Amino acid sequence: MTPNPHPAIRRARDFGIPFDGVPGPLNALTDVPGVHVGFSTLVEETPRLGRRLPVRTGVTAIVPHAGSAEPVPVFAGVHRFNGNGEMTGAHWIEDGGYFVGPVLITNTHSVGMVHHGAVRWMLDRYRDTFDGGEPLWLLPVVAETYDGLLNDINGQHVTLEHVFEALDGAASGPVAEGNVGGGTGMIAYGFKGGTGTASRRVDVGASSFTVGALVQANHGQRDWLTIAGRPVGRLLSQSDPVLAERGSIIVVLATDLPLAPHQLQKLARRGAIGIGRNGTVGGNSSGDIFLAFSTANPHPLRHRAGPVLSLEMINDEFLDPIYQAAVQSIEEAVVNAMVAARTTGGTPHDRYRIEAIDAAAVARLLARDLASG
Amino acid sequence: MTPNPHPAIRRARDFGIPFDGVPGPLNALTDVPGVHVGFSTLVEETPRLGRRLPVRTGVTAIVPHAGSAEPVPVFAGVHRFNGNGEMTGAHWIEDGGYFVGPVLITNTHSVGMVHHGAVRWMLDRYRDTFDGGEPLWLLPVVAETYDGLLNDINGQHVTLEHVFEALDGAASGPVAEGNVGGGTGMIAYGFKGGTGTASRRVDVGASSFTVGALVQANHGQRDWLTIAGRPVGRLLSQSDPVLAERGSIIVVLATDLPLAPHQLQKLARRGAIGIGRNGTVGGNSSGDIFLAFSTANPHPLRHRAGPVLSLEMINDEFLDPIYQAAVQSIEEAVVNAMVAARTTGGTPHDRYRIEAIDAAAVARLLARDLASG
Amino acid sequence: MTPNPHPAIRRARDFGIPFDGVPGPLNALTDVPGVHVGFSTLVEETPRLGRRLPVRTGVTAIVPHAGSAEPVPVFAGVHRFNGNGEMTGAHWIEDGGYFVGPVLITNTHSVGMVHHGAVRWMLDRYRDTFDGGEPLWLLPVVAETYDGLLNDINGQHVTLEHVFEALDGAASGPVAEGNVGGGTGMIAYGFKGGTGTASRRVDVGASSFTVGALVQANHGQRDWLTIAGRPVGRLLSQSDPVLAERGSIIVVLATDLPLAPHQLQKLARRGAIGIGRNGTVGGNSSGDIFLAFSTANPHPLRHRAGPVLSLEMINDEFLDPIYQAAVQSIEEAVVNAMVAARTTGGTPHDRYRIEAIDAAAVARLLARDLASG
Amino acid sequence: MTPNPHPAIRRARDFGIPFDGVPGPLNALTDVPGVHVGFSTLVEETPRLGRRLPVRTGVTAIVPHAGSAEPVPVFAGVHRFNGNGEMTGAHWIEDGGYFVGPVLITNTHSVGMVHHGAVRWMLDRYRDTFDGGEPLWLLPVVAETYDGLLNDINGQHVTLEHVFEALDGAASGPVAEGNVGGGTGMIAYGFKGGTGTASRRVDVGASSFTVGALVQANHGQRDWLTIAGRPVGRLLSQSDPVLAERGSIIVVLATDLPLAPHQLQKLARRGAIGIGRNGTVGGNSSGDIFLAFSTANPHPLRHRAGPVLSLEMINDEFLDPIYQAAVQSIEEAVVNAMVAARTTGGTPHDRYRIEAIDAAAVARLLARDLASG
Repeated sequence: MTPNPHPAIRRARDFGIPFDGVPGPLNALTDVPGVHVGFSTLVEETPRLGRRLPVRTGVTAIVPHAGSAEPVPVFAGVHRFNGNGEMTGAHWIEDGGYFVGPVLITNTHSVGMVHHGAVRWMLDRYRDTFDGGEPLWLLPVVAETYDGLLNDINGQHVTLEHVFEALDGAASGPVAEGNVGGGTGMIAYGFKGGTGTASRRVDVGASSFTVGALVQANHGQRDWLTIAGRPVGRLLSQSDPVLAERGSIIVVLATDLPLAPHQLQKLARRGAIGIGRNGTVGGNSSGDIFLAFSTANPHPLRHRAGPVLSLEMINDEFLDPIYQAAVQSIEEAVVNAMVAARTTGGTPHDRYRIEAIDAAAVARLLARDLASG
Repeated sequence: MTPNPHPAIRRARDFGIPFDGVPGPLNALTDVPGVHVGFSTLVEETPRLGRRLPVRTGVTAIVPHAGSAEPVPVFAGVHRFNGNGEMTGAHWIEDGGYFVGPVLITNTHSVGMVHHGAVRWMLDRYRDTFDGGEPLWLLPVVAETYDGLLNDINGQHVTLEHVFEALDGAASGPVAEGNVGGGTGMIAYGFKGGTGTASRRVDVGASSFTVGALVQANHGQRDWLTIAGRPVGRLLSQSDPVLAERGSIIVVLATDLPLAPHQLQKLARRGAIGIGRNGTVGGNSSGDIFLAFSTANPHPLRHRAGPVLSLEMINDEFLDPIYQAAVQSIEEAVVNAMVAARTTGGTPHDRYRIEAIDAAAVARLLARDLASG
Repeated sequence: MTPNPHPAIRRARDFGIPFDGVPGPLNALTDVPGVHVGFSTLVEETPRLGRRLPVRTGVTAIVPHAGSAEPVPVFAGVHRFNGNGEMTGAHWIEDGGYFVGPVLITNTHSVGMVHHGAVRWMLDRYRDTFDGGEPLWLLPVVAETYDGLLNDINGQHVTLEHVFEALDGAASGPVAEGNVGGGTGMIAYGFKGGTGTASRRVDVGASSFTVGALVQANHGQRDWLTIAGRPVGRLLSQSDPVLAERGSIIVVLATDLPLAPHQLQKLARRGAIGIGRNGTVGGNSSGDIFLAFSTANPHPLRHRAGPVLSLEMINDEFLDPIYQAAVQSIEEAVVNAMVAARTTGGTPHDRYRIEAIDAAAVARLLARDLASG
Repeated sequence: MTPNPHPAIRRARDFGIPFDGVPGPLNALTDVPGVHVGFSTLVEETPRLGRRLPVRTGVTAIVPHAGSAEPVPVFAGVHRFNGNGEMTGAHWIEDGGYFVGPVLITNTHSVGMVHHGAVRWMLDRYRDTFDGGEPLWLLPVVAETYDGLLNDINGQHVTLEHVFEALDGAASGPVAEGNVGGGTGMIAYGFKGGTGTASRRVDVGASSFTVGALVQANHGQRDWLTIAGRPVGRLLSQSDPVLAERGSIIVVLATDLPLAPHQLQKLARRGAIGIGRNGTVGGNSSGDIFLAFSTANPHPLRHRAGPVLSLEMINDEFLDPIYQAAVQSIEEAVVNAMVAARTTGGTPHDRYRIEAIDAAAVARLLARDLASG
C-alpha cells in the first residue's frame, strides 16, 4: 500500500478501504509531473455582520505546466454528464481542444470573482507574454459546486486575494483533502464532502504514465452511497440529514499520456462511470462536469507556432486500461474527499449539521464482506 | 418478488440475485403499455457451404404504439457513450427529438439488410399512410453489436424474412432473453451474453409510470464484472476466455412518462451509470449507444398536425427517481441477459466456447455477503 | 418601411440598404413582449494612470420577463459555431433546456466581474425568492467578445456598478446600437462594429409572433464583408486596417413563439446561416456563440412547480419561416451594428483607428445593382 | 479559369458564373490525391410492373486511399446541421475521429441495401485483411437524400450490383455531375438538383494542399436561391413548382491537409456557411449532414499499429483560409450540381416536372450586376 504522504489527513486506504489499481507515489493529481495544486480556505464560524450563515468556502487551483514562464496550451476534453452547474472555458475546449492557464474550482456564487481573479493573475503572472502588445484573450476554466447549506454563499465572500492565494500557493507534493479550498463547504451522499484526489499508474507499451483525478465532491444522497460495491449509505448508523441531492461534482483528470483532444473528451466521458461507482445516478440538481487534460504534446501559444504541429497520440486500442485508471482514480478521490472531511455545521447559526463519514465503520463493514467473500 | 412470467427462461431474481426498486408485472420492456417486442433467431451449428463458422445471430424488434394503424412519432433521446457501433436514425432523434417506426437490433454486418427490411415493412404495414402520395421518408432505428466470434457474421445471413418475422411477431407479454434475436451470438464480460430486459415502477405525484429497459449485451471483460457490487467476474471459478472487449451494448429505454425530447436525452445519458453498475468502463471497441423513448404525448405525423402541439413534461425536480429506475432496469437487464443465455460454441467449427454464467454460483457468492453484511 | 424609432441613431434601412422580411414595430429585440435591454458604456479617451490604452467598453443586459417579481425560467437553446469565446450558463441550457435571469454581454476580460454582478443583482432583485432559505443557485448567462484593440481590456475596468447600471436601466422601446454597452469597442469586418438589433414578424397558423436578434458584432475580415449579397468589403474605398479576424460575434435570439428546448437549439444553430449572410466563415479566433430563448410557456421556478408541466410547441413543419426570420434578423442586426457605430481610435494612445462603415456609400453600391438587376 | 475537364457536362464556370478562390486542376473532389469517385445510375422512364413512378435514382461512391490493398483509417469529422436524414457511421466518427472504407450516398429508402452492399464489398475487396480471423467490424458511411418526387423510392430499386458498380467504377479524374448516381432524382431550390463537386487550393506555409467538396444537392426552395449573392431564384422567369423543402443536402469534404479529428469536425461545421451561400436556412425537412475527412496521417488499422501514433496537425491559427476553401468549394459544388442537371419528369407517369436551371440566364443576370458593380 502506498504510505500516506500527508499524515495529518487520513485517507481511505489508511483505514483499509480497498481499491483496485496501482496508485502513483502520492496517490494524487500531483503525481502528474508539472501539475501543481493550491488552495485558499475561508472558515468563519460566526456570520459576518448582517449575514445569517457562517463562512465556509474557498478556492482550489490546479496549474498545469506550473513551472513554465509562458502559458502552455494543454490539450483537453470536457463532458457534461449533468449540466446544472458551471465550468467556464468549455466552449473552446470542446471546439479548439485545448485551454491555457489554470483550472479553478469554487462555490457557485463566486465563479465570477474567481474568473476575474484568474484573468488578473494570468495577466500578471505571464506579463512578458501579454505586454508584447499582441491581442491575446483569456478564457479561464472556472468550475463550481454549491455550498449554500453550510456557507453564506449569497454573501459572495471570495475575493481576488483568495484567488491569488490559491494560485500562488499551488505546489507539487501531497494534496490536502476534505474541508479545503473549494471543497470546504461540500456535502456528499449526505455526509460531509469536499476535495479529494487519487491517481493510477498506467503502462502503455514500454512506457509508464500517470492518470490523476481531483474532485470537488458535493453530490449524491445518503441512500445512494456505495463504497467498494457495498451500499454503506444504507448500512451505516450515522444520522442522516435526508437531503435531496442539491449538489454537484466537478472532476478534473490530468495525465501525461499523449492523448489527442478527441481522446481526452472520451476520457472525460468516463467520469460518469467513475462517479457512478459510488452510487450516484447524476441527479437533476447536480452539475456533474468532467474535465480531462494532458500535459503531453506541449506546443507554444498558437500565434507563435509554425503552420504545422507534430504530436503523438495513444492508439485507441490501448485506451481501456487508461479508462480503468481514470475510473478508479475518480472512485477513490470521492471516498478520499469524504474520509478527509470533518463534521461541519450544527452551530446556532446553522440550519444543518453534516457529519463526516465514519471511515473506520465503513472499513469494518467492508472487512466483514472480504472475510466472507 | 415478481414471479417469473416466462418460466422456461430462468431470470436473475429466480436465483435470488438481489436488485433494488420495484419492477413492473413482467419486469420487462413490455410493461410499458403499447410496446411490443419480437425476435427472429438464426441458429445453425454447421457452417453453410463455403463458410467456416456456424450461424448464430438474429433480429430483435421493438414496436412502440404497436396497435396503431398509423405510425405514431415518439419523443426520444439518444446518447452515444462509446461510439464504436451503429444506431441509425440518431441524427433526427438528436435534432428533431422523435422517431417514427420500430427499433431493431441485429449484428454489425446485417444492419443494412435490417434497415432495408424495416423500410419495406413500414411501407407495407402503413400502406394507407404511404399510398396517399405525400412525400414521406423513413429513417428507421437500427442498432447492432458484433457477434463475429460465435457467428459467421461475414456471411450476412440475416434476410428480409427474418426482419419481417421479428416485426410481425412482436407482442406484449413476457420477453424471451439470452440467446434470442439480435442477442443470439453475444458475449458479455467473458460469459455468454444476449438479450435481457427489466422494468421499474415510478410514482410521480399521484400517478404511477413504468420505465423499462431492453439490452443487447455484448460488452465487458471477465475481470470487470460486478454483480450487486461484488467482483464476481474475478471470484467465479468458471473458465475465462480472456477476451479483450470486442463487443458493445445497445440499451433501449421505454417509458410512458411524459418526457420532452431533451429530457429523454438526459435519461438516455444515464445508460452510462446503468451499464457501469456491472463494471464496464465503456471500452474503446464498444458501441455503447443508448436510446430512450416515451409513448406519452402521442401526436399525429407532423405533416398532418396543426401548427401548435400541446404536450406535458415531467418537472425536472422529479427526475431523480426516474433516473434511478432507468439505472436499475439496465443493471438488471444485463444480468438477466447473462443468466438466460446458454453456453455456445466449442464445436469443431468454433474458435471459441463461451460459457453461460453460473447464476447459482453467483447467488451463492452474494448470499455469503448478505449473510455477513 | 418601418420608421426609425430612435432617430439619433441611423440604421441600415434609413440609408436604403435592403432587407427581406417584415420587421416588428421597433425592428429590435424589444419587439418581443417583456424583453428589456439596457447598457452601461465606458468611454475614456485618455488612458488611466499607468495604463497605455483608452477605455472603450461596457455591458449589455437583456432581461426576459423583465416585469416579473420572481425570476421566470425561459426555455432556451445554445449553439457554439466557433468556440473561441465564452458564454457562461451554457451547460444547463444544453442539458436542462432553460435558464433563469438576465443575459449579459461584455468584453472578454470582464466576464468574471459581470458574472459576479449578475449574481449579486439577482440576489438583490429577487430578494423575496432567495430569502426564503431554499437552496437556490444561480448560473447567469454572461457572454463576451474581445475589444483589446480599442480598449484597455487588460485593465479590467468594468465594475459591479456598470453591471447594475445596465441591468437597472434595461427597458422596452428602441434599442441603442453601435458603440454602446458591450459593443463599445468592437470591430466587425475591419470596420467599427458594436451592438445591433433587428426583428421579424412570423405568422404561424392564425397567430402572429416575433423573432428578435441582438448581436455584439466583433467578427470578420474586411475582404469577407457581403451586404445584400454584394462583396462591399472589397468594393468600398475606405481605408482597410487589414486585420486578421481577432473577434467574435455573440447572437441572442428572443421570441414569443412556443418552442421547446430542442427546437430553440435548432433555432440557435441557424445563427451560422445568419452570420454567414455577411460573409464570415466563422474564423478560428472567433467565439461565434448563439443563444435562443422563448418567453412562451412560462412556468414557475421548478422547485415550486408541480410534478407535471404543460407546454405548447410549434409543429416542426412550421419552422422554416421561423428560421428565415431568425436569419434575416441576424443579418440585419449585424449591418445595423456597423451602420450605427462611430469611427474609433486613432488618438496618440491608440495603435488602431477603425473607421465606421460609410453606409451611404454602401447604399449607393447596392442601388446601382438594384437599378441594373 | 480552369478548363472544364469533362466537356460533355457544362459546369457553372463555363457559363461565366463567378466564384472566388483558386480551384484544383479538375475543380473536383478527385483533386485530393487518392480520392476516387464512382456512380451507378438507374433511369427507367416507364414504371416497373405494379408501380406508379419511373425509376430515377442511384448510388455515389467516394473511396479514400483507393489504391491501398488494405483499408486505411481516415481521420474525419461530421456535423449535423439539420438532422432529418441519415449518415451511418457517424457515431464512431464523432467519437473515434476516423472511419474505414468508402462513403456512399443514395436515396433514403435504399440506405439499407447500400449499407449491406458496402459491407459485402469491403469484405471482398479487403479479403486478406478479413480472412486473418481477427474480429473486425465494419461501420460504413452511407448517407442519403430523398428522391420520392421523381423516383419510385418506395420500390427500393437499388440492388447490391448497383452498389458494387459505383464502388468498382470509382476512379480519379473528372467527376460526372447533375443527374448521376445518388444525385439522379434530386431537386434543389425548385430546380433539378443532383451531384456536384468543386475544389480549392490552399497554401499553408510553404506547402500547397487541396480541399474538395462533393454534394448531393436536394435542398432549398425556389425563392431562397442565391447565386453569387443575387436572389436569382426570384429573378429567373422559369416555371416554379412551388415546393416546400422536402429534401436534404449531403456534403462530403476531402482534403490532404493534416487535420486532427477535432479540426475536421470544425471543418465539417463550415458546411452550414457553405450551403447558406446559396440561400438555404436549413429547412426542417432537410437532412443537412456534412462529413469532412483527411487523407493525411495515414496509419494502419488500429489493431495492427503500435501503442503510440505520430501525427501532424495544422496550427489552428492557419485554419481560416482552409475554412474559406471549404465554403467556396461547397458553394460552387451546389451550383455545379444544378447547372449539370437535366430537366426531369413531366411524363404521364409523373406528378412533377422539374426544370434544369437556365445557367445562361443566370449568367446574364449576374453579368448585368458585374457590369454595373
